[in-house]
Amino acid sequence: MKVQVITIGDEILIGQIIDTNSAWMGAQLNDAGFDIQNITTVSDEEQAIKDALDQAFRQFDIVLMTGGLGPTKDDITKKTLADYFGVGMVFSESTFNRIQRMFEKWGRSTTEAHRLQCYMPENAKLLFNKMGTAPGMWFEHNGKVAVSMPGVPYEMKYLMTNEVIPKLSTQFTPRAVIHRTIQTIGEGESRIADRIEPVTDSLPDFVKVAFLPGLGRVRIRLTTTGDNEQELQQLLDEKVKEIVALIPEFVFGYGTDKLEEVVGKLLIEKGKYLTLAESCTGGYVSHRITANPGASAYFAGSIVPYSNTIKVNQLKVNPETLKEHGAVSEATVIEMVKGLLNLMGADIAVAISGIAGPGGGTEEKPVGTIWLAVGDNDKVVTRKLNLGKKRLQNIEYTGNQVLNMVRQFLLEE
Amino acid sequence: MKVQVITIGDEILIGQIIDTNSAWMGAQLNDAGFDIQNITTVSDEEQAIKDALDQAFRQFDIVLMTGGLGPTKDDITKKTLADYFGVGMVFSESTFNRIQRMFEKWGRSTTEAHRLQCYMPENAKLLFNKMGTAPGMWFEHNGKVAVSMPGVPYEMKYLMTNEVIPKLSTQFTPRAVIHRTIQTIGEGESRIADRIEPVTDSLPDFVKVAFLPGLGRVRIRLTTTGDNEQELQQLLDEKVKEIVALIPEFVFGYGTDKLEEVVGKLLIEKGKYLTLAESCTGGYVSHRITANPGASAYFAGSIVPYSNTIKVNQLKVNPETLKEHGAVSEATVIEMVKGLLNLMGADIAVAISGIAGPGGGTEEKPVGTIWLAVGDNDKVVTRKLNLGKKRLQNIEYTGNQVLNMVRQFLLEE
Repeated sequence: MKVQVITIGDEILIGQIIDTNSAWMGAQLNDAGFDIQNITTVSDEEQAIKDALDQAFRQFDIVLMTGGLGPTKDDITKKTLADYFGVGMVFSESTFNRIQRMFEKWGRSTTEAHRLQCYMPENAKLLFNKMGTAPGMWFEHNGKVAVSMPGVPYEMKYLMTNEVIPKLSTQFTPRAVIHRTIQTIGEGESRIADRIEPVTDSLPDFVKVAFLPGLGRVRIRLTTTGDNEQELQQLLDEKVKEIVALIPEFVFGYGTDKLEEVVGKLLIEKGKYLTLAESCTGGYVSHRITANPGASAYFAGSIVPYSNTIKVNQLKVNPETLKEHGAVSEATVIEMVKGLLNLMGADIAVAISGIAGPGGGTEEKPVGTIWLAVGDNDKVVTRKLNLGKKRLQNIEYTGNQVLNMVRQFLLEE
Repeated sequence: MKVQVITIGDEILIGQIIDTNSAWMGAQLNDAGFDIQNITTVSDEEQAIKDALDQAFRQFDIVLMTGGLGPTKDDITKKTLADYFGVGMVFSESTFNRIQRMFEKWGRSTTEAHRLQCYMPENAKLLFNKMGTAPGMWFEHNGKVAVSMPGVPYEMKYLMTNEVIPKLSTQFTPRAVIHRTIQTIGEGESRIADRIEPVTDSLPDFVKVAFLPGLGRVRIRLTTTGDNEQELQQLLDEKVKEIVALIPEFVFGYGTDKLEEVVGKLLIEKGKYLTLAESCTGGYVSHRITANPGASAYFAGSIVPYSNTIKVNQLKVNPETLKEHGAVSEATVIEMVKGLLNLMGADIAVAISGIAGPGGGTEEKPVGTIWLAVGDNDKVVTRKLNLGKKRLQNIEYTGNQVLNMVRQFLLEE
């Protein structure tokens, strides 16, 4: 059963918004055993949508569309779908009543746009959208299925989870697609590939290996598909073990594990609280940590000491140290760690100080010079990064490295 | 000249990574006057790539491919391209020499994978990639152009900016596509649409209007295309003015303005320094602010007081206040603002305390209850949000609202 996702919207084509819906849908469909073969973004013009549907029904069995539904006038999807299927539009009383009740609850009245939004193609089976005003629409066409959903991410997610995937799984029989992903940090793509070649060279043809590089990170993914699900699961588990045995120092997790989650689990295991002083990363690492539910079990809090005044007054960095070595120096990050441990009542402290760029560098300390320190009351480990000039890339790369330093610090304790 | 972007990679289809390349490419191409009509993601399998190329050459004039180039074995793109064009592969001595020099500089040696990477389709004109080992490839085919680039974002960006767009602009004559985007915050899509209807209803047919909703935000985009560029520019400028006049209280910027940049500019104008105490947003707002180059000109620093100990010890919140009203309360955020102003030596302070979820709520204070305060030494403004249960959505929505509160606070001063 071949699935295509079509995203409708000029705003995506011209790069005004990034299509995160398709990635989420791909992951869900893949987990549910559907074979997602194509993701396409087209303009919200009648002809572009019709052309995309024509092609979709020629090549694929299931077509999931997002975007082009909603209360404003840029939404021509529904009229185009009705035209395409050769049906008229009907007013959905139940949808309009629901919208009216929603707005009454908020103490507001509906607008004419909401009324117009309730006209639906005659052949659409409406899918209940708890999160918004526009219902999903389910179409059947020559034994194939097309679904149209709003582009607002949480509305689409609600519909996919509660309506679309359950219905698809009943109507079609998904095949087994099996993945294993190994998450590594600290070595580049080609060297990781070289190191694990003894295993990857011996893989049977029906197991595919892919390397997915990130900032200072590489994910290794094994994929296979077939009927003998249990045997394949076992095979992949064995191969994963063999690969990890060749690069144990770089592996931090599996599947969709996030580095910050892995660090969080280790902190809970060891019963430790973490605190950070993030100068050049400006809150990025704290955000990554606190984006995880339950972070308060291992995260005490942090400080973003952007000004030197805060470094001196709060973190008790010696003004002499700043004068002699500068804010971006090993001596300063070591003092920041010590001050932070006292200030925050935590067990392990991280200090980051650097020049994120694109400006602000000197000959001695060019943009991309970043000092990191991780320590507790007994010892402090430091590291210097020499990165490029791209601010966001430097912030993200530094975040990955510092989280890995915390992981290693916890493992060595 | 119709452009298609093809992204090659199973990792995108199965949602393991989000395709941010296409959005960036779309924005650049659009700015350069090219008409980007389709973005497609296909599997890194030979047949899928060939099918995509077949379709691409039928429908479009320029096809830009990313992904499927690099030093590891998952990369079959080049061989497929050679097959598709019916040519052989040749070893690029110059590419290999360059890779060797890069690795010598790093004090490392090349691997067999790097050598294999230097075989290129005979008909490819190589494009110099300063940022990585894999060059871009330019193909001409029946008067149409296909370009293949690595999927690593900064390599692709280098190639697009320095090679692809300049070459395309010489070879083709891009038409004028004109956009204006108005950025609003504080009102929903349908109500914004209703309010500006007097203008949007009177727009000529060749001006398209689109509403792009975000978390608590709506962007309004006007688009037109034609030969009379100056006249069209003037028309859109007028229409933008008319729209803004109908909803002045909600407009915070234009084009790709970011709320945090707008706030940064206002802070510089007023000569003020900002500081934040981010409890439930955990560093997210600080990260957004410091992601902008030059933030140190208006951002003093921040504290993430995740534990109550930090709220009391650092921010001098009265323990009685916490006992009586709880950490998530108006009284606490007001005290946080005051403590923060003293602590950080800033002019304007923001305090955020809430239950981001998904757990941690009570009957009296359900998940999604978030208190915000913005103030200086003279006054403090507070606001309570009642949001849903989704942690990341709550964090992002809160970030938008609090930045808008700072904006309004600065404007009213």
